[in-house]
Amino acid sequence: MRTRRRPHLLLPLALLISPALVSAGEGAHGASPMVWLSLAAILLVAKLGGELAVRVKQPPVLGELCAGILLGNLGLLGFHGFDHTADLPSVSFLAELGVVLLLFEVGLESTLTEMKKVAPQSGLVAVIGVVGPMVMGFGVTSWLLPNESMPAHLFVGATLCATSVGITARVLQDLKAIDRVESKIILGAAVIDDVLGLIVLAVVASIASSGSMPDTWGLLQIVGLATGFLLGALILGAYVMPGVFRAASHLRAPGVLAAIAIGLCLLLAGLAALAGLAAIVGAFAAGLILDEVHVRPFGKKSARDLSEYVAPIVGVLAPIFFVRTGMMVDLSGLSAEPLILAGALSVVAIIGKLVAGLGVVGGTKADRFTVGIGMIPRGEVGLIFANVGASISVAGVPVIVPDVYMAIVLMVMITTVITPPWLSVQLAKLNRREAANTSGSE
Amino acid sequence: MRTRRRPHLLLPLALLISPALVSAGEGAHGASPMVWLSLAAILLVAKLGGELAVRVKQPPVLGELCAGILLGNLGLLGFHGFDHTADLPSVSFLAELGVVLLLFEVGLESTLTEMKKVAPQSGLVAVIGVVGPMVMGFGVTSWLLPNESMPAHLFVGATLCATSVGITARVLQDLKAIDRVESKIILGAAVIDDVLGLIVLAVVASIASSGSMPDTWGLLQIVGLATGFLLGALILGAYVMPGVFRAASHLRAPGVLAAIAIGLCLLLAGLAALAGLAAIVGAFAAGLILDEVHVRPFGKKSARDLSEYVAPIVGVLAPIFFVRTGMMVDLSGLSAEPLILAGALSVVAIIGKLVAGLGVVGGTKADRFTVGIGMIPRGEVGLIFANVGASISVAGVPVIVPDVYMAIVLMVMITTVITPPWLSVQLAKLNRREAANTSGSE
Repeated sequence: MRTRRRPHLLLPLALLISPALVSAGEGAHGASPMVWLSLAAILLVAKLGGELAVRVKQPPVLGELCAGILLGNLGLLGFHGFDHTADLPSVSFLAELGVVLLLFEVGLESTLTEMKKVAPQSGLVAVIGVVGPMVMGFGVTSWLLPNESMPAHLFVGATLCATSVGITARVLQDLKAIDRVESKIILGAAVIDDVLGLIVLAVVASIASSGSMPDTWGLLQIVGLATGFLLGALILGAYVMPGVFRAASHLRAPGVLAAIAIGLCLLLAGLAALAGLAAIVGAFAAGLILDEVHVRPFGKKSARDLSEYVAPIVGVLAPIFFVRTGMMVDLSGLSAEPLILAGALSVVAIIGKLVAGLGVVGGTKADRFTVGIGMIPRGEVGLIFANVGASISVAGVPVIVPDVYMAIVLMVMITTVITPPWLSVQLAKLNRREAANTSGSE
Repeated sequence: MRTRRRPHLLLPLALLISPALVSAGEGAHGASPMVWLSLAAILLVAKLGGELAVRVKQPPVLGELCAGILLGNLGLLGFHGFDHTADLPSVSFLAELGVVLLLFEVGLESTLTEMKKVAPQSGLVAVIGVVGPMVMGFGVTSWLLPNESMPAHLFVGATLCATSVGITARVLQDLKAIDRVESKIILGAAVIDDVLGLIVLAVVASIASSGSMPDTWGLLQIVGLATGFLLGALILGAYVMPGVFRAASHLRAPGVLAAIAIGLCLLLAGLAALAGLAAIVGAFAAGLILDEVHVRPFGKKSARDLSEYVAPIVGVLAPIFFVRTGMMVDLSGLSAEPLILAGALSVVAIIGKLVAGLGVVGGTKADRFTVGIGMIPRGEVGLIFANVGASISVAGVPVIVPDVYMAIVLMVMITTVITPPWLSVQLAKLNRREAANTSGSE
């Protein structure tokens, strides 16, 4: 029997999230009540924020960031401001697990075959789009923040390089333009600049950790390690993984395929971390390996993609990362400096990717300006880089200090906000022009 | 394009799980490689163990426990033996989150309407089945372990009370007997004794934490708090939750329903912990509240149960709990004492539930012996109680010491192993008898 329901509001839940409540004593056993309540609050505000963003036609990630900024700066949960170590380690760990699984999912959605087709155009767009913003970002930061260290300037440059595959794909989907040649080039380039970005991150993080520029040999080692790891994982994956999953599809234990896939993701994340790379590099590689493994669970007739198994888990854990990222933006010490830096970085980020659009060469009719606009949004990857930079300390000082962190988060938000309306206007123009050409040639 | 695959073995992954590898240094940033590799290893052995169990027609949880015992005692991952604090806190936290979500899922699967129908029979079976094993367990432990504390005896008694809903339901499903009247009574009683068990746990944990028997007033307070919490949650849930979810079903952010459901689970887990109850009590209550909320996600035509959203997450996190439980069984100090205790507890556990079958009263034709056998398996709940007992220390000594912990785990394994074949034989007998009666009366 289903009962009829009257509409109610989420208010009763919101009322329960009060500082008086959550600051009360520890539980008798296991994790403290604070951990459960914080996680509950983070999940609920994440989805409320995401919902508001969707309502104003923005990607949910934007709403999650804003929700985090509010949560952190209203001091609702006892944690606010930048201090990485003061908040609950269990929450931080779940956030990290969430982003590892998110990169795994992005890897799962990046198809090697699709990447091959538009490789020449996408490759050039990606390289220009990585080198351009990075060099300009390095220049702008060196100019505006002469007192910050060289690794800090490099890190800021690195955060400017990677287009957010997730946001771009979502926007193109929403605008029903996913089948245009521009979209294919954009997605291919976004994937390639993710990979390039991860290599850049490995290099930059290594420089920041050691505190000095490596010599040419050291640089080659790092690039070699990162590319070797990715290539090795891909080659191993191409030969071993289909067999593993063919064997695994005969297994009958419930949830066995999802668990093996996530187990592989965590295994490669751990191996990447052992090799000195970021754990997310390994997770992304695991996703690429498994991207074309279409899985037929025991006893079911239809094949299901692995990402369908992983998506529910990412849907719960990834928002924890983005809310927590927002929470780390400390508005209490807001001054002109980070705002100026955010503005300058945004300008550089936009120009860099518009220039990258010129990388569309050869006999294609693709519109270069559209490709450039499509590459603008920075998202998850830029934020992840900023977090890595904030977690590396040199002589007790994080490489990315709070003001710079805030500027990066703002840059990510600005580039993410402007893309959907801009791309929408540009695609409408293109459609009109194409319609005019068609009727003119008749 | 789908490529053809040759069968391969899981061996390459197993080879990577070597102590030499995982004991290497910390990562440059974030969680250590050890955390990712341990989680990967735990997930992979969990599913291998579960698979082996399924192959020999046993519930997967049994395989996960055995896998954990092997993993812990071979010292493969650096953690072994009983020490609760020595292993990785991130892994412990994920295990706890897993069991909180598992109890949430069990709550989701426990339908209030179904419970009402067979309430009289189920209620009496449940009460006898909780009181009987608990008193006998208390007696046996007091006799065999006179040096252990009174709270320890109580705790052991408590671990004997709750039938595992999950294991029972799975076995009845596998035997295609889920529609028999005996099955309905068994499931109803299993749900009620889960609830009774959680109240017993609240009382026992409070006694153990304070180190002394509470007076009658104190006892009433604890029982009142536990029942009040559950009833309050249920009443609040019946009036507020359908509205919340009706409102939430209009939300368009991806994964919003799963996140709100899990947010509610964590909220009630936190509130339960604040009230001095176990977090799992709150999670179970959250599940009961939401059990009849059938959710229609925005833009989809068919309604989907919430448990369908939660199952993938539980499928990955819950095995971590059971493998870790197995890992805490330290075989290195194996002596006769825990084996004798395990044997005695198993006998008491079986007799107690067979006696409970006599609680089937009134005009039903249900076979009392079948009901009794169906109630035998102890599972998740007993193990969770043992973990709670192991995590409460009085004067630096855990209430449940390693030998007793091992005995409880063995008791759970024994009761779980014997039920499927015994129930299968008994149901075959019943079917023959009924067939004979039918043909005789024709």
